[in-house]
Amino acid sequence: MDKIEHIGIAVNNIEEANITYEKLLGAAPYKQEKVESEGVKTSFFKTGESKIELLGATNENSPIAKFLKKKGEGIHHIAFAVEDIKKKIEELKTEGFVVLNETPKRGADNKLVAFLHPKSSHGVLVELCQEIKK
Amino acid sequence: MDKIEHIGIAVNNIEEANITYEKLLGAAPYKQEKVESEGVKTSFFKTGESKIELLGATNENSPIAKFLKKKGEGIHHIAFAVEDIKKKIEELKTEGFVVLNETPKRGADNKLVAFLHPKSSHGVLVELCQEIKK
Repeated sequence: MDKIEHIGIAVNNIEEANITYEKLLGAAPYKQEKVESEGVKTSFFKTGESKIELLGATNENSPIAKFLKKKGEGIHHIAFAVEDIKKKIEELKTEGFVVLNETPKRGADNKLVAFLHPKSSHGVLVELCQEIKK
Repeated sequence: MDKIEHIGIAVNNIEEANITYEKLLGAAPYKQEKVESEGVKTSFFKTGESKIELLGATNENSPIAKFLKKKGEGIHHIAFAVEDIKKKIEELKTEGFVVLNETPKRGADNKLVAFLHPKSSHGVLVELCQEIKK
């Protein structure tokens, strides 16, 4: 893993959370984006070489809506930047990690992404992120 | 906030988790440290400019033992690096954040630290970290 790409935080009201995190981090979100296929709206804040990604639900069936209902607001996942996501998926499978997306999918912020099940990483939902070259 | 200093992850068995995170991050912990005053044992892994800090409990009254009992293993807090922790505490109090340690305390990894209550940051336990100059 090259670095922490971002930390995802699930929030009930993304407009209110945008204001809170602008105060906390000292700058407004540099990007806001909906990923309809995932039922999420996102806001991205820069902090050093990493980002904070706020995640709001766009509908009740969204994974974020289900997370919020079960656990309430809070940290949802850690995403690590990788150079070659397909190679990394194979490596981690060999090491015994449970990969939820054997084929990477398109995520927010121009990324190919895949998730590891929290049960193989001590309760942490881990995302792998590879930047899509333009 | 200058950058993500580390992400704290609460685990039941730090020896097992060390093995898992060595596989995930590709290198062994560069430091392991007990903070008896907090009832925690910690392992630090480098990832880019940030760190992953595994947190195990050393006794049943440890805040980590209570977290594990209530929520199970998983992400415990996000720590941000700051230049001047006292100044940042005052700024954040003015902005409405609930600061749990008005006077910074000594944390692991040669840091002065203070926490913000999750209720003022959408469910996220936020740590401020200032490196202690030698």
